[in-house]
Amino acid sequence: MPRESEIIRESEIISMIRSRSREHPGPGVEVGIGDDAAVLRQDSSTDLLFCSDLSVEGVHFRTEWAPPGVIGRKALAVTLSDIAAMGGQPRFALASVAFGQGSAMQFIEQLLSGMFDLAAALGVSLVGGDTSASPGPLFIDASAIGVCERGRAITRSGARPGDLVYVTGELGGSALGLSLLRMGYRLGVEGGNQEDAARQAAIKRHLFPEPRVRAGQMIGQARLATAMIDISDGLATDLRHIAEESKCGVVVHGKLLPMAGPLIQLWSSAATEGEKDPLQIALASGEEYELAFCARPEAASSIRDLLDKLKLPITLIGEVIEGQGLIVEQDGQPVKIDANGFEHEI
Amino acid sequence: MPRESEIIRESEIISMIRSRSREHPGPGVEVGIGDDAAVLRQDSSTDLLFCSDLSVEGVHFRTEWAPPGVIGRKALAVTLSDIAAMGGQPRFALASVAFGQGSAMQFIEQLLSGMFDLAAALGVSLVGGDTSASPGPLFIDASAIGVCERGRAITRSGARPGDLVYVTGELGGSALGLSLLRMGYRLGVEGGNQEDAARQAAIKRHLFPEPRVRAGQMIGQARLATAMIDISDGLATDLRHIAEESKCGVVVHGKLLPMAGPLIQLWSSAATEGEKDPLQIALASGEEYELAFCARPEAASSIRDLLDKLKLPITLIGEVIEGQGLIVEQDGQPVKIDANGFEHEI
Repeated sequence: MPRESEIIRESEIISMIRSRSREHPGPGVEVGIGDDAAVLRQDSSTDLLFCSDLSVEGVHFRTEWAPPGVIGRKALAVTLSDIAAMGGQPRFALASVAFGQGSAMQFIEQLLSGMFDLAAALGVSLVGGDTSASPGPLFIDASAIGVCERGRAITRSGARPGDLVYVTGELGGSALGLSLLRMGYRLGVEGGNQEDAARQAAIKRHLFPEPRVRAGQMIGQARLATAMIDISDGLATDLRHIAEESKCGVVVHGKLLPMAGPLIQLWSSAATEGEKDPLQIALASGEEYELAFCARPEAASSIRDLLDKLKLPITLIGEVIEGQGLIVEQDGQPVKIDANGFEHEI
Repeated sequence: MPRESEIIRESEIISMIRSRSREHPGPGVEVGIGDDAAVLRQDSSTDLLFCSDLSVEGVHFRTEWAPPGVIGRKALAVTLSDIAAMGGQPRFALASVAFGQGSAMQFIEQLLSGMFDLAAALGVSLVGGDTSASPGPLFIDASAIGVCERGRAITRSGARPGDLVYVTGELGGSALGLSLLRMGYRLGVEGGNQEDAARQAAIKRHLFPEPRVRAGQMIGQARLATAMIDISDGLATDLRHIAEESKCGVVVHGKLLPMAGPLIQLWSSAATEGEKDPLQIALASGEEYELAFCARPEAASSIRDLLDKLKLPITLIGEVIEGQGLIVEQDGQPVKIDANGFEHEI
């Protein structure tokens, strides 16, 4: 393990890159570094969305935790989630993969199949990439191009005081699944009692994230959101990004958070590791790949309609206020948020 | 070192991926996996070019061979070269970088600066990417979007018997530079005699490839080429790609090859390592990032004009024939080609 002083935080790197890239935004760049995807002006009716996401063995996954197809699927899913978070439709993807020495052809084939299968399921064309040997871990970078109507990409910076804050799906399951994997539980090797089933559900939640492509696109097309982000670093960190970029504050009501079923059910065993209560787990749980978004109060009924169409829970969890940062309140009291975010270390 | 049987050749992986991707090419995909870049139909006047290239420490570079800025610059250059090889204009790029544990902030900053500087010099906007820790080597994946006039991307498959074959720049310098780096020579630490200067030139050639963006774009705009590729795997291998995709044969005349000056000058010392003659080195030398292209004989005068405008050597080296594969001839005799290509192993 590196010493604390040696750990370079991703946030520091990003802020360095952002200041550099703002010197030369370049023609056609509507939104550059710092949002879920770059927004590029293409023609009079369409903007392109462009993004990539790294998945590194030993940082984002372990090969003993999932078959190669599941690893490949997730590596693409996390990139497509970024397009969803902009309200766009993912169209094309590339996969760059460096395989560890001794990777069998079957491993490679299954990993790539996992990517092709997800792409096909979501109407995305996997059109290229690169492969290499790796003298160390398996390394996957998936990049994607998406499209949206010109000027309609949903950034992190459009939230205004008075907006309501929503989240799709449920929270906390991914962190619980990761915890269980670390404790030695594995996908599909347990018996059938209720606790086992809850563990399996949490592990699946971590290993098989569902990028909210259809939801993101419908929210984008219906212009329902003022700001949106996908939950990759944990709800608390990701809402802080919206607060910072939108120059306002966000209040979340702990009681409204949609807790993942397995988290409620397994709370006591999960707590043995980190001694966190479910609220803290749900706030810090990264790699959920749900969408958090802000919307004007008058959009509420359209959002309920969307919920019916998508058959996906969309939960009101808070509101945007004047000020800055994130406040989580429970029973009228502000709650101290344990985690500073979900920095990867497997 | 892995045993021979464990080495997965990139060509096998690519052929597996291609057969899979051809099952579902997808709407808007004009050219999918297997060319320098994918060609995507965007609107009635423009096609997008989309590609990525991996650079892995210990496979493509060593950190002790070049400062971080040089490593970053090259990692982006190789991707932009793929856009050049399609006759397109690179517009936007992403950089995904996994930094080894203990990478100092200064190292990270310099590496990214090398990418930003090259992007700015070539009119490309670096608009995002991803960063991560790596528990092993440094990994860089650069992806890019380019544009070209609709239907005008230059693939590998358009060569016809009777075409002439050209190459930009000089060949063999990159392999020589790599050889010298392996032998312990370093950038800029030698004295001033002629041999030292030649070594430095070869090392620079390997570390500072110049993607032929302007040449590629002008060849594309003037519709001079029937097929084009950038020389990343070595002239012999890359021309075989053109022959295979175009379903014809390619003849190269050894005497016409534009040999890199340092290669001629240092032939005897370079030969000590691999016992290859300069022709074999020039044919096998990867990472040259020159453009090899085929053109109808009637384009010859336009190509001479281009040469004058670009102040870049463009040399006629052979012709396209009926048949298949690559034939290299010297003094009227076919030459046995030593290398099967430039497979990375540093």
